[in-house]
Amino acid sequence: LTPKPRPLGVYETSLYASDVAAAAAFYEQVLGLDPLSGLGELGAAFRLQDGGVLLIFEPEQAATPGRPIPSHGAAGPGHVAFAVPAGGCDAFAGDLRRLDIEIEREINWPEGGRSLYIRDPAGNSVELIEGEAWPRAGG
Amino acid sequence: LTPKPRPLGVYETSLYASDVAAAAAFYEQVLGLDPLSGLGELGAAFRLQDGGVLLIFEPEQAATPGRPIPSHGAAGPGHVAFAVPAGGCDAFAGDLRRLDIEIEREINWPEGGRSLYIRDPAGNSVELIEGEAWPRAGG
Repeated sequence: LTPKPRPLGVYETSLYASDVAAAAAFYEQVLGLDPLSGLGELGAAFRLQDGGVLLIFEPEQAATPGRPIPSHGAAGPGHVAFAVPAGGCDAFAGDLRRLDIEIEREINWPEGGRSLYIRDPAGNSVELIEGEAWPRAGG
Repeated sequence: LTPKPRPLGVYETSLYASDVAAAAAFYEQVLGLDPLSGLGELGAAFRLQDGGVLLIFEPEQAATPGRPIPSHGAAGPGHVAFAVPAGGCDAFAGDLRRLDIEIEREINWPEGGRSLYIRDPAGNSVELIEGEAWPRAGG
């Protein structure tokens, strides 16, 4: 019996925004992500430092049946958390204040991590986390 | 001037499923992800091998205003791609056939990667990718 195949990690994380340009400007200018071309009118893509990819889709275009890639598309606010390096929460907090972007909440986790929560222009809940919010092992 | 803070990677990726138990069974049993406790009735959480976390939220509970953590919740199919190791697509394809789970599409990317697309029980588009679908550098 061959061992069960297992994913290594998440390669693409998706969010939805009707105004892709506004959302893309936020992820590029506020969060400092590197844009990738290739989605065209379908949305915007960004490469993270660890090799992962963030995708922002225009939900109606992404949900069009018969696309070359299987269709999808959700309405309503989603959620993503980005890992930031040590000192990243303080650095981002200063940056967000300068940009007049509201920090909706700040949470210190029992596992030692610390999170800031903001909203992207589409209303998605964006978390910036330093350290861990989940136990290391399963259970 | 301090350098602009930047995220290292995605820490939490979120999907939504009205039937959390069915979705959780899929991610644990079909994809082999390690469950994490802690979300309770709000949903299910899984740790990936690279330290990232997949969250499955019950959308109405997650959207309830006034939660300790900022609310969110989307309706309609989302999309996630999981990186699999070399040989992972063939290994998963065999596994999926045995489990009678339809492979909706298979794509070979110009960048050298190869993807299988399936659906989770909530209709989310789940991609298993070996190699790259995006150019290495930005642009």
